[in-house]
Amino acid sequence: MPLDEEHHPDDVQQHLREVQELLARQKVVENLVHRQDMPRHELVEDLVHKQHVAELQNRLDELHPADIAFILEALPLDDRLFVWDLVKAERDGEILLEVSDAVRESLIETMAPEELRAAAETLDADELADLAPDLPPEVMLDVFQSLEGEEREQLRAAMSYPEGTVGALMDFDMVTVREDVTLEVVLRYLRRFDELPDHTDKLFVVDREGHLRGILTLEQLLINDPEKMVADVMRTETVISFEPADDADDAAQAFERYDLVSAPVVDGEERVIGRLTVADAVDFIREESEQEILSNAGLREEEDIYASVWDSVKNRWAWLAVNMVTAIIASRVIGAFEGSIEKLVALAALMPIVAGIGGNSGNQTITMIVRAIAIGQVEQSALRRLLKKEIGVALINGLLWGGFLGAMAWWLYGSWQLGAVMTSAMILNLLLAASAGVMIPMMRSRLGRDPALGGSVMITGLTDSGGFFIFLGLATIFLL
Amino acid sequence: MPLDEEHHPDDVQQHLREVQELLARQKVVENLVHRQDMPRHELVEDLVHKQHVAELQNRLDELHPADIAFILEALPLDDRLFVWDLVKAERDGEILLEVSDAVRESLIETMAPEELRAAAETLDADELADLAPDLPPEVMLDVFQSLEGEEREQLRAAMSYPEGTVGALMDFDMVTVREDVTLEVVLRYLRRFDELPDHTDKLFVVDREGHLRGILTLEQLLINDPEKMVADVMRTETVISFEPADDADDAAQAFERYDLVSAPVVDGEERVIGRLTVADAVDFIREESEQEILSNAGLREEEDIYASVWDSVKNRWAWLAVNMVTAIIASRVIGAFEGSIEKLVALAALMPIVAGIGGNSGNQTITMIVRAIAIGQVEQSALRRLLKKEIGVALINGLLWGGFLGAMAWWLYGSWQLGAVMTSAMILNLLLAASAGVMIPMMRSRLGRDPALGGSVMITGLTDSGGFFIFLGLATIFLL
Repeated sequence: MPLDEEHHPDDVQQHLREVQELLARQKVVENLVHRQDMPRHELVEDLVHKQHVAELQNRLDELHPADIAFILEALPLDDRLFVWDLVKAERDGEILLEVSDAVRESLIETMAPEELRAAAETLDADELADLAPDLPPEVMLDVFQSLEGEEREQLRAAMSYPEGTVGALMDFDMVTVREDVTLEVVLRYLRRFDELPDHTDKLFVVDREGHLRGILTLEQLLINDPEKMVADVMRTETVISFEPADDADDAAQAFERYDLVSAPVVDGEERVIGRLTVADAVDFIREESEQEILSNAGLREEEDIYASVWDSVKNRWAWLAVNMVTAIIASRVIGAFEGSIEKLVALAALMPIVAGIGGNSGNQTITMIVRAIAIGQVEQSALRRLLKKEIGVALINGLLWGGFLGAMAWWLYGSWQLGAVMTSAMILNLLLAASAGVMIPMMRSRLGRDPALGGSVMITGLTDSGGFFIFLGLATIFLL
Repeated sequence: MPLDEEHHPDDVQQHLREVQELLARQKVVENLVHRQDMPRHELVEDLVHKQHVAELQNRLDELHPADIAFILEALPLDDRLFVWDLVKAERDGEILLEVSDAVRESLIETMAPEELRAAAETLDADELADLAPDLPPEVMLDVFQSLEGEEREQLRAAMSYPEGTVGALMDFDMVTVREDVTLEVVLRYLRRFDELPDHTDKLFVVDREGHLRGILTLEQLLINDPEKMVADVMRTETVISFEPADDADDAAQAFERYDLVSAPVVDGEERVIGRLTVADAVDFIREESEQEILSNAGLREEEDIYASVWDSVKNRWAWLAVNMVTAIIASRVIGAFEGSIEKLVALAALMPIVAGIGGNSGNQTITMIVRAIAIGQVEQSALRRLLKKEIGVALINGLLWGGFLGAMAWWLYGSWQLGAVMTSAMILNLLLAASAGVMIPMMRSRLGRDPALGGSVMITGLTDSGGFFIFLGLATIFLL
């Protein structure tokens, strides 16, 4: 039996192109139908049309939900909704889980409450909890009432944990065994399953009350003599487990650090209540870094690239507004020195250099510090040492680049005094950038805030206004 | 048997603090020894000193290599080297693999060739290949010669694949089985292992020549009747495999999309030559996003936070130099309009607003587009549609914010003409930012370059110079 079909990593691109082609052919047919109103043609065209749609539907049925999600993301709104209608209803739920928030919204908007209810009912409690914020409340209520006791409790639990905690990421699929049985018994027990939960690399060994006693990896189960007892084979040392209130970021880092595939989640009394898998950790890591990149650029969230212009404006306006405030402040600083600029117009041309390089250098510092804080390597006590180093870097850069720019100013405008002011302003603004780049994230972290958020905007605002003030101030004192 | 020791995700912070405390106590003792030169005390102090070192060493022996790596990263250079000396020699190899490039360099520098050789010999071929670029060539040569035939071939193969390919990430640990045996035979075969390779969630079914015939997941192995044949149970459809030359980024995305734990790597003739695991994929994802965040801020690579000032300057100078060039260009643009500024000094105060908001808005656009290209959702054909949308967003933002700023300029300087110029310049610069934000990454991607690299610097340079030129140009034409 040869391999019937093989996937390669760039297949999803191929799938996308196929779907696009089928859509395009389908549109050609539609256009024909619209243009040629002659009745004798209609029947033929209609047949061709139906054939194309059927082909597309078959293609979609073969695809992995994640691939369909990818294709939906990549299609413009009208094509997206056309394809979405062709997807089998029982797959709606898992696909909704895979698409980004923005695209999910666009899909849910077009669905009737019954469709949404049907889609929701195909999902596990932890998946439902993920989808819940995007579903209309009346649909959620119906779904909730249709659940049975245990699942209802699980959904309630999953929804009660705030975003960013282990509880919000965990699932409830797991296989537990007792320690006083042989591996043979475990093997026979597993053969009664139709399937194991995704990412089952270990079984959780629990006592009668569900307390975690140890873990039995599938590896140990497979390589050991089946006559052995679970208690003799299970691992009890360095068992990594989480609690629902633990920080999801720490948990994801633990998955990465210890190369975990799954880990138990226990309550305060060490009772196993759920499970975290590497798939959750990977998704979390990806989302976190996306979020960091987006907010660095002043975007609130991932944007559906085919979102309406208006949705895009809403996603972007907040940071633009902040940026405008800092720009206006910087402008007023310059305004205060208009007299100086009038007398020496070269100042106007040179001042953006001082501000710009200060901003760039401050961003380098703050990025470094934020990363170090994020992976937990900088304690508050390290503040002084870091400050010293960053100030050293700023001094060297200030002397080098500032010296060069001072020489340039001297050469351009024939005044060594202007050059000296330029060099001094560069050094001072780089020192300001370095101190703020260390202090802002350290202070925010000490206050328990996210050290990254908006740091770039703050530091750029500071080095702009500060740079203008320092340069124009020095010029006013020493040149005029 | 209760759980002897349990790990929680923030334990590594705890480990770090313990080590720091032991180091501090150790230093107090050392200081005492140095200060009190009285011979009768020496013996006692020496004992106390040795006791502290032994305690620290015991603590380190208990820790996971990844935790030791974390601690080494977080310690200043002298403490780091002190701790590194205490680590057992046979663990050096795995710890060197875990630390960041910058810290690895600082550790390798202090090690003698024999130590390095001993550390390298504890590693697998694929791990050696990762370490190779940082090892002195003579050490690598020795290690290479000490390897046996197959491993030597594997090392040669692993080192031959360029960074960023599947070949550079894959390992050679895998378990293969034949299809014409029963599951019982497979189970008995596995019991002969002392351990299975990390992340073994599936066995690769191969024929006599090593061609991939299908995969047998541990799940299928465990839930099926042991009398069944591998051929009847193995999966042959939608088997996801990679080739060594495949793009690592695509592979990592496939792991994420299909929630894989491991996947076979095959050569051009479908012979299994290696394996990719989710741990490799996670590390790759993390490194990629770190790299994106760092290069966004103009840093070449991750910096050891305790790196010397000089190393930091080197890491940062390249982007600062680029930034300086764009700043000088912008400054010359202003210089060309010095006459206008002399006549109307308000221009100097208002111009940075136009440039700054243009830069911010351009960065929003380019970040969006780069992300969409990176996940493969934007084909070149979508260019026109995206351009239209971004221009729409720019127009709305230009009218809104530009209108507001125009009104402010009018109010501040009492000239409605100045306000009108401000508004027009804002609109035009935002349109420039939007077009460049779409075109730059699309062009780079069409030319086969990394669409992200330096995009932010380019667009900021463009919107600075462009913003000054548009604003001062309009002012010169209409106001003077």
